[in-house]
Amino acid sequence: MKNIVVLGSTGSIGQSTLDIVSRFPERFRVVGMAAGSDWRRLEKQIQKFRPLVVALANEQAATQLASRVDIPVLYGEKGVIDVATLAEGDIVVSGIVGAAGLAPTWMAIQNKKTIALANKETLVIAGELIMKAVAKTGIPLIPIDSEHAALFQILDGRSDPSSTEINRVILTASGGPLIDMPQRLKKAITPAQATAHPTWKMGAKISVDSATLINKGLEKIEAHWLFGLPPDRIEIMVHRQSMMHAMVEFVDGSVLAQMARPDMRIPIAGALFYPERAPLRLPPLRLEQVGALTFEAPNKKAFPLLIYAEQALKIGATAPAVLNAANEEAVAAFLARRIDFLAIPAVVKRVLDGHQSWPATSLEAVLEADRWARLEAKRHIQKRAHRSN
Amino acid sequence: MKNIVVLGSTGSIGQSTLDIVSRFPERFRVVGMAAGSDWRRLEKQIQKFRPLVVALANEQAATQLASRVDIPVLYGEKGVIDVATLAEGDIVVSGIVGAAGLAPTWMAIQNKKTIALANKETLVIAGELIMKAVAKTGIPLIPIDSEHAALFQILDGRSDPSSTEINRVILTASGGPLIDMPQRLKKAITPAQATAHPTWKMGAKISVDSATLINKGLEKIEAHWLFGLPPDRIEIMVHRQSMMHAMVEFVDGSVLAQMARPDMRIPIAGALFYPERAPLRLPPLRLEQVGALTFEAPNKKAFPLLIYAEQALKIGATAPAVLNAANEEAVAAFLARRIDFLAIPAVVKRVLDGHQSWPATSLEAVLEADRWARLEAKRHIQKRAHRSN
Repeated sequence: MKNIVVLGSTGSIGQSTLDIVSRFPERFRVVGMAAGSDWRRLEKQIQKFRPLVVALANEQAATQLASRVDIPVLYGEKGVIDVATLAEGDIVVSGIVGAAGLAPTWMAIQNKKTIALANKETLVIAGELIMKAVAKTGIPLIPIDSEHAALFQILDGRSDPSSTEINRVILTASGGPLIDMPQRLKKAITPAQATAHPTWKMGAKISVDSATLINKGLEKIEAHWLFGLPPDRIEIMVHRQSMMHAMVEFVDGSVLAQMARPDMRIPIAGALFYPERAPLRLPPLRLEQVGALTFEAPNKKAFPLLIYAEQALKIGATAPAVLNAANEEAVAAFLARRIDFLAIPAVVKRVLDGHQSWPATSLEAVLEADRWARLEAKRHIQKRAHRSN
Repeated sequence: MKNIVVLGSTGSIGQSTLDIVSRFPERFRVVGMAAGSDWRRLEKQIQKFRPLVVALANEQAATQLASRVDIPVLYGEKGVIDVATLAEGDIVVSGIVGAAGLAPTWMAIQNKKTIALANKETLVIAGELIMKAVAKTGIPLIPIDSEHAALFQILDGRSDPSSTEINRVILTASGGPLIDMPQRLKKAITPAQATAHPTWKMGAKISVDSATLINKGLEKIEAHWLFGLPPDRIEIMVHRQSMMHAMVEFVDGSVLAQMARPDMRIPIAGALFYPERAPLRLPPLRLEQVGALTFEAPNKKAFPLLIYAEQALKIGATAPAVLNAANEEAVAAFLARRIDFLAIPAVVKRVLDGHQSWPATSLEAVLEADRWARLEAKRHIQKRAHRSN
């Protein structure tokens, strides 16, 4: 029996995680859950999974919930961290969206929890620190992002991925809902259009990131840290069906690929059952029904955020944290209809260009960069919002 | 430095093997070569690779060659076996086509040679005996057939492939040159048409086997023995581009696949370098240039030999040996223009239907079945040849 802590339990990753737990009650028990502000959904989850303790980032929501359940309801970042580091927890599913996931994940690692990582921002912002901490504890960090879970499977039990046996790895991208849209029409894109992902059901933030393709840039940074691969050996390929998630090309010309239907329960179960395989009994991938898997080089010009992400990775230090923070602010402003879709890359570029990076040698250093970038991004957003009103 | 013996050196597999050896002279040395009757090509290979000894199955050809080279030239089956069991040999590349490859491969195993197996008939005819002998010596049997080399890579270092973690394996088939031809036109197919393979350059016999799809049936039998998988967990999928060679579907819905350009040097190098990866520096697989990988269920009705092969596997015992022998005779008769293309499955069916199988408990028992089937096949071919003249 493994004890699971679910960070971000009311979100897309959290709900899929709980679905897996409910299918294997003899294997997993939920001991802690943390969410942002959706106390109504969390209450239902408490009734079903009976954790020992929960936390809500939002204090008012926590107060609401506390009066309705008979377990401790913690609040704020400290509350979330207390759940992440719960003594009873074996595996922490890191499913909080954005930079907010970093501190709880960091503290869970310090407390020697096995991490099932969906929060890619943790590695984008603090990849070097995190991987050093993980190496120090020797406890596995298992990616849940489908592309990285794919690479993890392909490379599992093989020689060091940074070895001379690997030519390159390829992360696939569906291309998102706007892949074929002419640039001039993108200005008028609504949040509903940008979040209408063709193959994956995900939260709003990551859906917008898929529409701008920055998601794939963040994943490249994530892969760089997870597998110790230099940026020029991590490529992006547009594959619209989202069936093949990643590939590894070896020096003999042989390519190993991982495929699965686009269902996050598969990589989540992979992390929870690791090193075993979960007997999921989901409908199988039927390639004869899919008919064709297509592959295209990405048109980076149409998706400049992919280029900016690659630039940030090349600069290193605090640049990826700045890229990520600026993007989070810009996407939030877009979803709130304060700026248009094309302003997202514009804001990120402005903030990144204005950043003089400093060494990412401590959590404080990267969080400082995150704060700086958010202020800068807000300033640029304000100017733009003002201009367009 | 590994010492290589190449059985079938003048054929397609043999030539590709020698190409690999010539690219890595610091890694490999050819100590023995055996061929059928092409002494002219063998003479050139001797000049280039300087083996210790060679053999030709054809005695007259051996006499021709002996007068022109200064190394021993053995002949006949015994000569080929002497080369296969050469004391200096570390790895024996089993690249003789058809049932003729069985005895030398068997003797090489008995002499504890690492086997790089291209001759699928060895496992089709005597799978149980061979795998028992391999298990006894503990020396690896590494498949070179691209589909099995793919499975070997995917499963290498993982749990027993017959384990409960695997749902099924899928072998891909290009479909051959006749995949879209209406049945009524196949009677008039010429050897040149049947051997015009769309994606692989191979010898005549295996090219015809690809056109009838029995090749994929033989490969299913081969996979059954190599990986200990029950027949109902080995599926065939038509994939015209021959880029993806095999897949393994696990119980969690995850599929691992191996891809490579259709170039036999890749799986051959994989076997010679095993467990390392060969730094081949061949042109990489560029999926963005391929564009699409397509998948279709095979139309077994149009390719009855695939069904007969599955029936033979189900019957077991000497039935696969009989299937194979009847097919070899029928294909030879077709290539000699003695019977038409549609007579190949007809002859095989007649012979298989008339066979009362016996236990395949010794090499003699399966060779007896092979001989019986050839006589039966020749009888049916004679009748048909007579009828059509």
